[in-house]
Order: sequence, then C-alpha cells, then structure tokens
Amino acid sequence: MLEMPAAVTRDRKTLIEQYHKVRSFSEELCRPLEIEDYVVQPVEDVSPPKWHIGHMTWFFEQVVLHQFQKDYRPFKPDYYFVFNSYYDSFGDRVQRNLRGTLSRPTVKDVYEYRREIDQRMDKFMHECDDKTWEAAARIIEIGLNHEQQHQELFVYDIKYIFSANPLFPSYRDDLPQGKSFGEPSPATFIKFSGGIYEIGASGDGFAYDNESPRHKALIRDFALMDRPVTCGEFLEFMNDGAYDDPILWLSDAWAVLRERQWRAPDHWYQIEGEWKIMTLGGLRPIVPDEPVAHVSYYEAWAFARWAGKRLPTEFEWERASQTL
Amino acid sequence: MLEMPAAVTRDRKTLIEQYHKVRSFSEELCRPLEIEDYVVQPVEDVSPPKWHIGHMTWFFEQVVLHQFQKDYRPFKPDYYFVFNSYYDSFGDRVQRNLRGTLSRPTVKDVYEYRREIDQRMDKFMHECDDKTWEAAARIIEIGLNHEQQHQELFVYDIKYIFSANPLFPSYRDDLPQGKSFGEPSPATFIKFSGGIYEIGASGDGFAYDNESPRHKALIRDFALMDRPVTCGEFLEFMNDGAYDDPILWLSDAWAVLRERQWRAPDHWYQIEGEWKIMTLGGLRPIVPDEPVAHVSYYEAWAFARWAGKRLPTEFEWERASQTL
Amino acid sequence: MLEMPAAVTRDRKTLIEQYHKVRSFSEELCRPLEIEDYVVQPVEDVSPPKWHIGHMTWFFEQVVLHQFQKDYRPFKPDYYFVFNSYYDSFGDRVQRNLRGTLSRPTVKDVYEYRREIDQRMDKFMHECDDKTWEAAARIIEIGLNHEQQHQELFVYDIKYIFSANPLFPSYRDDLPQGKSFGEPSPATFIKFSGGIYEIGASGDGFAYDNESPRHKALIRDFALMDRPVTCGEFLEFMNDGAYDDPILWLSDAWAVLRERQWRAPDHWYQIEGEWKIMTLGGLRPIVPDEPVAHVSYYEAWAFARWAGKRLPTEFEWERASQTL
Amino acid sequence: MLEMPAAVTRDRKTLIEQYHKVRSFSEELCRPLEIEDYVVQPVEDVSPPKWHIGHMTWFFEQVVLHQFQKDYRPFKPDYYFVFNSYYDSFGDRVQRNLRGTLSRPTVKDVYEYRREIDQRMDKFMHECDDKTWEAAARIIEIGLNHEQQHQELFVYDIKYIFSANPLFPSYRDDLPQGKSFGEPSPATFIKFSGGIYEIGASGDGFAYDNESPRHKALIRDFALMDRPVTCGEFLEFMNDGAYDDPILWLSDAWAVLRERQWRAPDHWYQIEGEWKIMTLGGLRPIVPDEPVAHVSYYEAWAFARWAGKRLPTEFEWERASQTL
Repeated sequence: MLEMPAAVTRDRKTLIEQYHKVRSFSEELCRPLEIEDYVVQPVEDVSPPKWHIGHMTWFFEQVVLHQFQKDYRPFKPDYYFVFNSYYDSFGDRVQRNLRGTLSRPTVKDVYEYRREIDQRMDKFMHECDDKTWEAAARIIEIGLNHEQQHQELFVYDIKYIFSANPLFPSYRDDLPQGKSFGEPSPATFIKFSGGIYEIGASGDGFAYDNESPRHKALIRDFALMDRPVTCGEFLEFMNDGAYDDPILWLSDAWAVLRERQWRAPDHWYQIEGEWKIMTLGGLRPIVPDEPVAHVSYYEAWAFARWAGKRLPTEFEWERASQTL
Repeated sequence: MLEMPAAVTRDRKTLIEQYHKVRSFSEELCRPLEIEDYVVQPVEDVSPPKWHIGHMTWFFEQVVLHQFQKDYRPFKPDYYFVFNSYYDSFGDRVQRNLRGTLSRPTVKDVYEYRREIDQRMDKFMHECDDKTWEAAARIIEIGLNHEQQHQELFVYDIKYIFSANPLFPSYRDDLPQGKSFGEPSPATFIKFSGGIYEIGASGDGFAYDNESPRHKALIRDFALMDRPVTCGEFLEFMNDGAYDDPILWLSDAWAVLRERQWRAPDHWYQIEGEWKIMTLGGLRPIVPDEPVAHVSYYEAWAFARWAGKRLPTEFEWERASQTL
Repeated sequence: MLEMPAAVTRDRKTLIEQYHKVRSFSEELCRPLEIEDYVVQPVEDVSPPKWHIGHMTWFFEQVVLHQFQKDYRPFKPDYYFVFNSYYDSFGDRVQRNLRGTLSRPTVKDVYEYRREIDQRMDKFMHECDDKTWEAAARIIEIGLNHEQQHQELFVYDIKYIFSANPLFPSYRDDLPQGKSFGEPSPATFIKFSGGIYEIGASGDGFAYDNESPRHKALIRDFALMDRPVTCGEFLEFMNDGAYDDPILWLSDAWAVLRERQWRAPDHWYQIEGEWKIMTLGGLRPIVPDEPVAHVSYYEAWAFARWAGKRLPTEFEWERASQTL
Repeated sequence: MLEMPAAVTRDRKTLIEQYHKVRSFSEELCRPLEIEDYVVQPVEDVSPPKWHIGHMTWFFEQVVLHQFQKDYRPFKPDYYFVFNSYYDSFGDRVQRNLRGTLSRPTVKDVYEYRREIDQRMDKFMHECDDKTWEAAARIIEIGLNHEQQHQELFVYDIKYIFSANPLFPSYRDDLPQGKSFGEPSPATFIKFSGGIYEIGASGDGFAYDNESPRHKALIRDFALMDRPVTCGEFLEFMNDGAYDDPILWLSDAWAVLRERQWRAPDHWYQIEGEWKIMTLGGLRPIVPDEPVAHVSYYEAWAFARWAGKRLPTEFEWERASQTL
C-alpha cells in the first residue's frame, strides 16, 4: 500500500529530502494510468490528472523559483497560463471547465516540465543563501502540502473519471475487493463531557490557514457512535423510502436531491436489482457491514435524522479526536 | 499530399480493395496525432478523433457484420453503446456531449477493434454468398462513404481542437505556410443563362439521400464571380465596421453574432494588432490574396450584401458547376 | 364576430378612415381582458397585451410623427425605450424576455398614450402638405399592416396566456363551444397540373417585403387534399404511437420533441383520460371532425409521412390558391 | 408612518383582535399599488404582491380551517395549487418562477378570497370549542407571524419591482427624500467583555424555529462600532477600487461579483456620473452621511476587511443587543 510521506519541516536537508519524496509520490499515484486517463474532465469539479501534475509543478516554478530567483527565465511561459488554478494574483488562466479540452501539452511534455523544475528546485534548495532559504522554506512547505492536497483530489478525480465511464475500468487490479467484518456490533454511544476546549492548530507544524487561529469553543456534553455507519444500515434508510420523504431532508438538500435525481450514495449503481459500488478496483457488490462512503453532508444529515440522532459538530469531532 | 480514394463500386474485388484503401486513409489522417489529441472534445459539435475511429468501425460491425451474419458475436458488446452516434434504431448510446469524457477504451484498444473488424470484414466480403453480397455491397458502399464523411469531419475537428488550445499546436509541420497569388484580379462576373435544369444525383454512382431524387429546377439568368473572395476583401468588410452594423445582417444572424461575440471568421485571431489564422500547420499571418475560409453562411450573406451582391442559390451553383 | 378591416390604400381620406378603424379594432380585441391579463409574459415569445398596445402606438409616434415632423416632441421619451421591439436602428430597448416584468406604464397610461398619439396622428394626417403625405402614407400603410400583424399575434398570445394558467380562464364566454360537422368525407385529392407559375405579390396593394419580388417558379403536377385533416385523424396518428416513433420525424424534430416532451398538439390537455383543447372560449373536449390546429411544422410533416403523403410546398399552396 | 402590530398571544379575544390588525396591515401596505404592480415577478426570488396576498390567506385556509374543521369545503380548490409555496406536505404547487405568469385569479378575486377566509376565520375563532382553540391558536399565531414575514418580503419585493423598471416609479410620493444627519462622527468602538452567554429565544412569546433552542455560547472580548457605516464611507471603498480587487473578497464572493457584474450596492444607479439610489419614494441622490443599505453579506465582509476590521458574529450581535 502506498503511504503518504510525513509532514514537512524547515530543516534544509530534511526538507529537500521530503521535497523529493512528496514529488515522487505524485508520480507513483499516476503509474496505473493510461495516457488517455490523464486528459479527460467529466465534470467541472474534476481536473484531468495531467493538469494536476502540471499545476503542482507550476506552483514550485511560479511561486518559488520565480519569486526567489532574480532574472528567472520560465521553462515555458505559456505554462503559467495553462497551469494556474485560482491564483488571480498570478495572472490569467485557462477557464476551469475547459481544462479537459486541452490535448497539449502532452503527458510526456508535462513530465518533462516536472523533471526540469525538480532539477531547478533541487539546485535552488541546495545553493540559495540562508536568508533566502528562511523565506523560501515556508513557501516550499506550503507547496508540498499543496501537492499532498492535490494527491488527495487526484484520487477522488480518478475514481470519478472511471466511475463516469460506462465500461467501469479499474484503476488498479490488485486492490482488495471489499471485505466483510462480520455482523456489525449494535451501535453504542461514547459519552464526552462538555466544557471549554481549545480548538485549532497548535504547535509550529504546518497547518492550513483555516485551521487557525487556535481559539476556545464551548462544547456541551455529547455522545458519539463508537463505529461508522455501515452500507447495510444505509440501505435500510434507502429501503425505508428516505430519498422520497421531504421531511427527512434540509430544505436545500431536498431541492438538490430532486434536481440531480439522487437515489443512492455517489458511485453506487443498481444493476439488475443488485447494488454495486464503483471503487478504484472496479465495480463490485456492496458489502453490508463495510462503512458507508461517498455520501454528501445532506445525506449524512438526513440519515442521522432518520435514525433519531444528529451529526456531531466540527468542534465535537475535534474534542473527541483529542481524547482518543 | 494525401489523396482521398475514389468513389466505390459494387464489383466485389474492387469494393474489397476500396474498403482497405478508404480504411487505411483514416489511419493515415491520424498519423500526426499524439494519443492525447485523440481524446478531447472542446465543444459538443466536435468529436474526439478516438471516437471517429471507433465509430467508423462500429458501422461495419453493427450495420454490416451483425446484420448479415447469423449468430454474429460482437467483438465487445459495450462498444455498441460507446460508438453508436445518432442511430436510434440501433439502441442506446453515449450522449454526444460526453464523448470527450471517456478515457477508455484507449487509443490502442480502438485500433485493436479496428484491426479485428477489418479482418472479419475481409473474411466476410471474400466468403459470403452472392445473394448476401448483393445486399451487403450496398451497405458497405454506404459505410465507406460514411467513413469518408467522417474523414472530412475529422479534419474540421482536429483543426478546432488545435485552434481551441492556447498553445496553438500544429497538426503537421510540413504544410505550406500560406501562399500569395499576387494582387487579385478585379472581380468579374460570368454570365449564365437561365432555363429549366435537371438538379440532383444522376447515374448509378453513390449519392447521399439528400442529393436525390433528380428533379427539374427553374433558374433565372445570373452571374457568378470568377474567383473566390479573398481574405483582403473580407478584411475590408471588417474594417468597414460590418460586424457592428445590423443593417448588413439577417435578423437571426445579428442575434447569433451578438450572442457569440463574432468579430472575424472562425480561426482568425488578432494578436498585437495583426490578424492571424490558425491552420493545420499552426498559426500564421493572413495572406491578403488567399481565398477567405471559415466564414458562416451568415457572414457570407452579409459580405455579399455589403458588396451589393447576393449569394448564389444551391441550384445556381449546380448549374454553374455542370457548365464548367 | 369581429371582422378585420380591409387592406389600406393611399388615398388620404380613405387612409385616415382606415387608420381609425384598424386602431379601434385593436382596442376591441382587448375589451374582454382584465387589467392583469395585459401584464403577463408566460414565455419569451409571448408579449404582454399591454406591450402590444403600446408598441403599435410607438410605431406611429417614432416612425411616422418623429420622422416627418420637425422639432417633434415625444409624448414621453422613455416610451421610446419601453415600446421599441427589434428596431435596432431606432435605439435601445427593453430586453424582449423582460417585457412581462414591467408593471408601469399602467394599462391606463398606455391607453392615454394611445389616445394622445391618435390625436396627433389625426391632426398630422389632415394637415401635412402633399409632399409629406406622399412619403408618410407609405409608412402609415406599413404601420397599419404592422398593427394588424400584432392583432394576430395578440390573439395567439392571449390564448397562450390563458392556456398557461392552471385555472384555464376563458377570453370570451360567448364563443361557440366546438362544432361537429358530422362524419368527415373520406379524403380525396384534387389534382393540379404543373408548369411555370408567377409567385409573389402582384399589383400595387400592400405586401410584406418577404412576399416580393414576384418571380417564376417551376411546379410539378401535384394533388392537394380537399379538406383539412381532422382532430380525429390526428388522434389516430397519436394513438398509433407516432410521438414515440423516431422514424416518422425529421431529425431535428425528434430532438425538439424529446427535449420539450411533446405528446400532443399545443393547447391539448389530457384530463382524466379525455383529450381537451384550450380555446379562447375556455377548455372543452376535442371534437373529432373539427380541423386540427396548433400543430407545428414538425408535427404536420410527421403526420403527412405517417399518412403516406407529404406537405405541399409554399409554391404549390400559392398555385392552388390562385386556382380556387 | 405605518407601524407593524405587536407580537401575538394566545388569549382568544386578543388573538382575534390581532388577527384582524395583522391582516389589515397587509392590505394597508398594498394601498399605493396599481393593479399591474400586483402581477409582475422580475426575478424568481421576488413574488408578485398578488401572490403574497393570496398565499398569506391560503395559509389560514389550508393550515387552519382545513385542518381543524371537519368536512371543510375549500373556497376554490384550485387556489390550494395556486397559492401553496414550499409546503410539499400540502400537495403540488405552481413552480415558483412561474408565479408572475398568472394573470388570474385577478386582484379582485384575491381580495374576495381574502375577505371570505377572514369571515370564515372570524367565525371559527369565535365559535370553536376550547380544545380546538388550544391547538389552533398555536397555528394561528404562526400564521400571523408568517403574514408579518411576508409583509417584510412584500416591501423588499415591491422595491425590487419598481427598481427593475426603467421608469423608476415610486411606491409612495409622501416618503422623506433622504435626510442628512450632518458630518458623521469618527467611528468609535464600544467594548464588550466576553464570557458564556445564553443565546436564542427565551420566554413563551412566539419565536421562529431557528431561534431555539436557547443555548450557551462562548464569546470573546470584542468591540462594535457605535454607528452604522455611511453611504459616503461605502463610496470611499468603491472609489478605492474595491470592486476590482480580488484580495478584499471571499473566494465565492469574487466569483459571484464577477458573474453578476456587481459594481455598487443593490438599487444604486450611476446616472451621468452621479450615484443615485432607488427608494420606495423613487430615485434620488445618495446622501453621504446616511447609513448604507442593500449590501450583501459579501460586500459587508469586504468592506470590513478593507477597513481593517471584521463583521461581528451572530452571537456578538445578540450579546450586544441584550446589553443595550
């Protein structure tokens, strides 16, 4: 199983090492892809893998090399336009919904771009003076976390790309085909006492800006279920007519559900009466005692209401996680 | 320069020969493409080259082999769904605007499909009995003309795909880069006398259904310009403010023009003040005395009005062509 | 029954008389309306009656009075913006699809506008010198024909407005409630001989620009059914599954039919199993031997194909009408 | 100035009195309208006043009379369909965006409906037995609060309806035309100490469901400006280029702003260089020291960021309000 490299630090040697680890992990994730898989964008929210690979590299070129090196000459100036995402302050960019319309640069071009920038980055990280390093290290750390975010997105996106294909191709054939854990235990609830708790990033490790500032939050006594909801339990909810009962849903959830004709979690397909799930290993039957996944906030909320419970708040989650 | 094979006949040996010629011409057209170029669909009207290649093959499998061979077993039944286009009578199909979202089957898969069906077709064409041949030859002839239609579409589509890419890649680098014919002669008009003329397909060669039945049409005396309108003349029209003057346009033309913000023929780009044209050989300056191309009916109509003329009718064209 | 005034001439006295006749006919058509009926625009193609009333008046103000009177002072300059339709050359205008969002000017305001312009027109028509009259009469004639066109549109629009209302209100309660003519005669076809015929407006009466120039057309021998298709015959077509059979429809017809989910002629509603039709007199059962109406070109074409016939061309219609 | 009646109680006599007060207030708000103003719906979010008037009445008919009276016979069953809003549990309803396409029922019809239901309600409220009253009073109380909510919406909607009209009509001509309070005092900030506070509805007066349950919230020390932001201050923000500077806006705010081309608060119009505001009294110049209104959350947030401040949270607002 692939393992995501640990969070980065600002020690120069360690950071350079981590740079290369994080960067090669992206390429490892791409290994099972055919060239064609790199190109498509089935919906606006999904980016073509080729674009991810180029964009993660663009970050290091434009936001690190270009900012910290005097007279920096871009590898290919057009790539600034092609691989920028939302960063309005770095200039124009290809409209997000058109990313899947670009056949060029080719996958080979993008890997060449990647290799070239990795070499330039390696040289820069080894050779820059300490003062530059001080400033650049912080950005490189962001760049690596940014790359890891895209690695996560990449996995969602490749699942979406394969799930949207009527041939249901699989990303990897060596993945486990769903595993039964046996009859799930009856749900019991673990009690947590309320109080004033510190919430948000602490320490000096990397954290995204929406994880700080650390602040106090008031939490009431609450209880959290001791295991995830299973696919079987979710099927009960579906079979009880939940997707047809407006009373179980938030008002905007109900509008979305009807507009998009939701009838089940994402990536679930009912084929000749049987519910199947599209996974990175291809299409396979639902395993009733597996944790349910691919449900939206709206569906989770409706499930909890149907079960006579409610979802925990973000603060309750963080409180419960600190405890465990 | 590639040359499109001649129209087909129903002599068995000749038709088999032509089958292979037409089919390999499609592949020859694809030779300059990278794999990525096969996949994308920048707008609904443009099909990915991969889809063209698969669809032209699908025709021979579903409409010929499947119809004329008892107990025919499809190469891959899913391909019937993936590569059908409009043919409602042959079952369901991928929505047209989603063709560019499919990364699989891969280009390699599609060429395998192609080779397999070509072998089956070759065997079928050699071995079927005369009665079957009689019926099948007509459909094969349609299939080859259908393939030639798609060859034409393919060229439009690849130009569109490359023109929609901000990097303006070129399809082939060995194409002539625009050629000046020298100062165009002043437009003179060739006179044609009117009368009752036969219009439409004659003889027993292949013709599309909208070219028949042959019928009589009444044509008045008319005159046709003796050479195409040039890019330079069209620029004059543009520089005269034509794209801002509602009086020159049909009412629905004016609505379309404003909605889509047309300012020039398709594939023309004004870059730093200079008009360039995107061709299969890449982006290059307009050559003033070249024939103008990529103008819609609406633009041609408006140009003619601006010039104090009108477009010829379909019948006048056919009349003039018969004469020359 | 209301009767539409006859076509206009350019004799000053007669034209003034006709001006007032045509103008009051518009108001007569509006008499059965409630104020609210004047305001709404259920779809972009339908204009609110209030807008028709104002727009027909606007024509006489802007296109006649304003053009032919020096130092003309508009009644209310804003009305030029509010009541212009497509006439780009007369300046900006309210977007067509927003006509139904304007509560002001009120109906009362619009009738005041109407009365004021009618007085100014009357004065102008009586008092202008002969040379002005010469030029203006032609425009006034167009204006009256324009008003009659809008009277026609008005009737469509009011039917649409009432038909789109779930209460199915009626425009007039004194209209005949559908009349049976008895069992229709079996369709017979009247033969017309072909030849070269003159088509288009002749004489010096008013004609729209798309009715000229008069020109020759070649018509083949053809036959025309001797009576309209009935609702009962159209029901047979429907009951034969025509709206589900792609083979009967033009390709673009089939796309439109499926997108808009057409199942019957416009204004037909199936209520508890029975087909009803929304008329200006309200909702009532279909009468099987009435002529069918409210069918699109696409539906007429498909019906003809289903019946093993074809629609006549415009030229054949004109030829047949000249004969009768 | 009109004054909104006080919150309701469940004492039968008082509640009946309040019923009539609240109900007549709705009609008083409508007094300045022309019939045409009742009908239009310029955007989906704005309902025609006629619909408000009918819908508020529908609530009392369907949710009170129909629920609490055995064998209740609806005034007009169709009105259940026409005047339902979101209440899926009460059956089908006219699509929200089509409310402005209905000319019938007329305004007169709707007032008749209103009068009839008011009489039936009056009779019901006086005559029902105590047990029924117990249950019904709670719903009537909701109905009156519901009506007051619609009174608020009504005022927004009528402003929108008049503001969307190029003639800029005024709702009332007797309203004050903008008042200068003199040079605003420099902004000073009032300090509030943090702590744990009770938030939400208390007591047994009416409250909407999203105002309860009352719960504890942790509030930090904070400070609130001692007067509203003025139009003049907002103009400074605009003149400083705020609407063109992505750095001041939330990411989704920036997307909305560009899509809808926001350049100023809603109902502000720049006419010949001068900023004007559309009010219920018509269009008039901005008064610089008036409080700014018609700004979205996004604009308020961006303004605060530009000013180096932030918006207060809901809890801080409630804490500050309790103090004052």
